[in-house]
Amino acid sequence: MERVLASIPPDRFENSLAAAASATEALLDRLLPETGPAPRLVKAMRYAALGPGKRLRPFLVIESSRLFGVPEARALAVGAALECLHCYSLVHDDLPAMDDDDLRRGRPTLHRAFDEATAILAGDALLTFAFEILSRPEVHPDAEVRVKLIGELARAAGKDGMAGGQMLDLEAEDGRKLELEQVLTLQAMKTGALFRFAATAGAMLGGADPVPLGAYGRAIGLAFQIADDLLDVSSSAAALGKATQKDHARGKATFVDLLGEAGARRRADELVAEADVALAPYGARSNMLRAAARFIIGRRK
Amino acid sequence: MERVLASIPPDRFENSLAAAASATEALLDRLLPETGPAPRLVKAMRYAALGPGKRLRPFLVIESSRLFGVPEARALAVGAALECLHCYSLVHDDLPAMDDDDLRRGRPTLHRAFDEATAILAGDALLTFAFEILSRPEVHPDAEVRVKLIGELARAAGKDGMAGGQMLDLEAEDGRKLELEQVLTLQAMKTGALFRFAATAGAMLGGADPVPLGAYGRAIGLAFQIADDLLDVSSSAAALGKATQKDHARGKATFVDLLGEAGARRRADELVAEADVALAPYGARSNMLRAAARFIIGRRK
Repeated sequence: MERVLASIPPDRFENSLAAAASATEALLDRLLPETGPAPRLVKAMRYAALGPGKRLRPFLVIESSRLFGVPEARALAVGAALECLHCYSLVHDDLPAMDDDDLRRGRPTLHRAFDEATAILAGDALLTFAFEILSRPEVHPDAEVRVKLIGELARAAGKDGMAGGQMLDLEAEDGRKLELEQVLTLQAMKTGALFRFAATAGAMLGGADPVPLGAYGRAIGLAFQIADDLLDVSSSAAALGKATQKDHARGKATFVDLLGEAGARRRADELVAEADVALAPYGARSNMLRAAARFIIGRRK
Repeated sequence: MERVLASIPPDRFENSLAAAASATEALLDRLLPETGPAPRLVKAMRYAALGPGKRLRPFLVIESSRLFGVPEARALAVGAALECLHCYSLVHDDLPAMDDDDLRRGRPTLHRAFDEATAILAGDALLTFAFEILSRPEVHPDAEVRVKLIGELARAAGKDGMAGGQMLDLEAEDGRKLELEQVLTLQAMKTGALFRFAATAGAMLGGADPVPLGAYGRAIGLAFQIADDLLDVSSSAAALGKATQKDHARGKATFVDLLGEAGARRRADELVAEADVALAPYGARSNMLRAAARFIIGRRK
């Protein structure tokens, strides 16, 4: 695998990621003009969706789309929808009744910059807007494809996916220490489901089998969460742009608690290897996705 | 018009409404089984979606669908999705950071019965689930129709619709008294957009022109809000199952403030007449929708 990896030097990966981020932000900027009947709401939505961010999920949509020759405008539209949905989840997770965070990506969280009611509504409107974007013909001329993406995103984000995972995560604060198996389920729902959607979106747009990319998405989703837990113990709030070590302090079982720091790092490496195996059918064309897996476990924030 | 109205006696209307409510609740009960990985979340979603309610919006979907011979199972599925979305909006509107209500439909609001975090998440999950339902083939075999419904519902519920209207409503609490024209815009977004969606859903499902039903929906949406403001001054919390006179106390301009009680009643009657005019193309087949308009302005809660 090292030979394959060597073909994408880190700076080329970072340039690609930055280009995808710029293109996604340009599209979001166009999709969310500061006009309309409720300007304060749009301002709050823009604060959440257009603030600093790696745009990792849109990048995965774009790169998985490349495997199937999907026109980039379509991948960008799906990426923008997914980013709206991801940003809504950050806004609601940060609320005082949820994780109660004041800092996100180095800036005040939305409810601190605006107010709590505006943050709730802006999250609601971003979630709604994600589905509005996916309903548009720019996403794909075939409505069957659009409706498939909508159904999959709703399942990934809903009661059996991200929202359900966040519920389990909040319940885990009540002192009940979770076993590894339970944390794996929780994280597969809370973080994994959106990564899985991002990775399979290209196959859905390209009319291809989404199963191999589903396995890739599952692996990197979990790797992302493990890396998050590792960063949480090793980084400062200043470096990370958000509060650190809150999960551990709340008695939540993190992967570092469950596996130890070395064990967590080992598991992350294994997941990158699993991601490589999942990408085997696509050969060297999927090198950027392989590099993404390595970036996820090596990231500093 | 009185002659046309006479063809639907009040008890027949109420039986139809009750039948639509039962069918909608049976479907929601089936769509939201108490299984799955996050049982507490589903329990909260069920509390919100399956508690007491008139199911007026699903009723409008069902009745508008009848005009075009749409199979009832399709109308019911759209009605169930719309009810999920409506119930999410009630849950989030009731939150402490929003309207801060303890009572809804005669029971504790969701954040009182559960907790605030669960209420936020259950609202999010109901909103998401609405789009999941609409993506399913049971709604309509043609994906173009499903994706049209999804786009219209997202627009009705989003930044330029319900969520935007709620934002304007919250801003109106800041002491700035709104003019009639502004309150009309606000209410058309906050309440009207979902009624309009409900009324036009039948035409979308039936492949018919949604414009006449859009005018009907707009009229009854506004009539509904005026009736709400009238109930708010004339009813007790016990009769209404929720707190009363909060809007007025908060300095929000209600239709009763702006038009006076008699003026508001007159305007509601005019809107029923407008609804009748909009339904003219459908003749006596639309008598149940005419009766719905009268029910809306005559309701006691």
